[in-house]
Amino acid sequence: MNSEIAGVHLRAQLHVAFERGLPVTSETEQHLAGAIRETLRHAGSMVRAELAYRIAESYGQSRDRAENLAIAIEYFHTASLLFDDLPSMDDAAERRGAPCVHHLFGEGAAILAALAIVNRAYALVWKSVAGLPSELQQRGLAYLEQNLGVAGLLNGQCQDLHYSELPGNARSPYRIALGKTVSLIRISLVLPAILGGASAAEVRRLESLAVFWGLSYQALDDLKDVLFPGGETGKTGARDAQLNRPNHALVEGVPGAFDRASRLMRLGSRVIVVLTRRRSSLAFLRDSHRRFESEMSALFEACPASSL
Amino acid sequence: MNSEIAGVHLRAQLHVAFERGLPVTSETEQHLAGAIRETLRHAGSMVRAELAYRIAESYGQSRDRAENLAIAIEYFHTASLLFDDLPSMDDAAERRGAPCVHHLFGEGAAILAALAIVNRAYALVWKSVAGLPSELQQRGLAYLEQNLGVAGLLNGQCQDLHYSELPGNARSPYRIALGKTVSLIRISLVLPAILGGASAAEVRRLESLAVFWGLSYQALDDLKDVLFPGGETGKTGARDAQLNRPNHALVEGVPGAFDRASRLMRLGSRVIVVLTRRRSSLAFLRDSHRRFESEMSALFEACPASSL
Repeated sequence: MNSEIAGVHLRAQLHVAFERGLPVTSETEQHLAGAIRETLRHAGSMVRAELAYRIAESYGQSRDRAENLAIAIEYFHTASLLFDDLPSMDDAAERRGAPCVHHLFGEGAAILAALAIVNRAYALVWKSVAGLPSELQQRGLAYLEQNLGVAGLLNGQCQDLHYSELPGNARSPYRIALGKTVSLIRISLVLPAILGGASAAEVRRLESLAVFWGLSYQALDDLKDVLFPGGETGKTGARDAQLNRPNHALVEGVPGAFDRASRLMRLGSRVIVVLTRRRSSLAFLRDSHRRFESEMSALFEACPASSL
Repeated sequence: MNSEIAGVHLRAQLHVAFERGLPVTSETEQHLAGAIRETLRHAGSMVRAELAYRIAESYGQSRDRAENLAIAIEYFHTASLLFDDLPSMDDAAERRGAPCVHHLFGEGAAILAALAIVNRAYALVWKSVAGLPSELQQRGLAYLEQNLGVAGLLNGQCQDLHYSELPGNARSPYRIALGKTVSLIRISLVLPAILGGASAAEVRRLESLAVFWGLSYQALDDLKDVLFPGGETGKTGARDAQLNRPNHALVEGVPGAFDRASRLMRLGSRVIVVLTRRRSSLAFLRDSHRRFESEMSALFEACPASSL
């Protein structure tokens, strides 16, 4: 119960930090200001921020360091959604239950707002690493670059976009999700650990967990896209089939995607056992895992029998 | 003569670093890889990189630090041009004498390539500041954030985009150029000085120089847009009138814009006298100033008499 209350407090704290982390002024051009404000009003689940914060805390980082890093990661994620929703990418109409920012303030302002959020995210990372030993800073920042850049998130996004033109062996939704989805989960779980001086073995285990979670998270997202085409989840649905995007549930079928996600979750569960045995402060990972499992069960139960 | 040869060498060194600074691999999605390669094949004048490198050198920074910072700044500038040329912004067809990247590889890939270049730029900044005193790092990085973000470049870009909707008192091309153009010149001149431990007075003088140069540079660019509508300068011309963008030469007339640019250059010249009196290693600023003046004279001479 105590940990539940602590969780509610932390989420409230992170929501405030998310909304206030990039202030605009009367000098800010009004479309840009509007696009930034509107984006930061809709924080989403903040699952990445919460994970990053708690990992940082587990490795003894101060509240300020943990919060700055958590919000930075959530900002990178949020900016990636703004870009993702553009007409030249997924051409979405809704996100987080509201009209997409480019529909409200124009495409140019949406792009510039996303860049402002990225710029702020890097600045928050700097704040978060200030004063740490130079060796840890450089390792952490290189890890961030690698996961966000052409070897990570951006590559995944471009593979997603040009899915149908990929060579056969690269056309697995799992492979694409490694760049597109796992990269940010990896940054959330591993980067705060690196900055906190985690051992090589711990880093390796957290990386595996990121892969298991990230891939099942993507499978879940793909299942939602197929099972709720009417946008009941707060974002435009049934886009993957229309746009020819990689989708686990389209490639393997709904039952196959559920099976695969459950297997990945079981693997994740085993890694958590080992991680928490060595470092009890990581026990929160069990709660996150359980919440994630309930989400999957709920989706399974909401799923029409005909599709299983 | 020696300094001229050194200049040629430095420009060659920076061109190589620019082209090779963001390697793509066989794992990189082909549109993304193509867009990055094509962008880095066309380095442009590299005036920002050269200035940043020489300032860093003047303040005793190592070759590696100077080069990383110089390329980072040039990457920020280059990415801003990729965004600027998009259909939702200036909708340009040509840049640096070649078709725009989004025409060759699609808009999605152009956006993702620009983001990859931004991501690499931040990583190069980190390399450049690694091991410096934490206080200088934090001051420098805050300065960078401020000039790139909602208080600087991105705001200028959005004001440019929504020029006709700005309130009257904000609709001066000079005011907009402070964000859009001066920000990057300021980073080039001032950031390496801050990181090199420049005094407050030197920082102030370099900031003034950035304003004088940046505003006259923008006036020159605007004059070219008006005087060479056929794209003789390697980018699509006559866009400002068509798109209702701020343009000094459209607002003040061609002779007025020339006058203003010359006055700004004279002010810049005076600041350089003071700067080089105190720090002789900044003498290269005189050469840059002279090259810039010749460019302006050449434009003046190429200008049809009827427009003066």
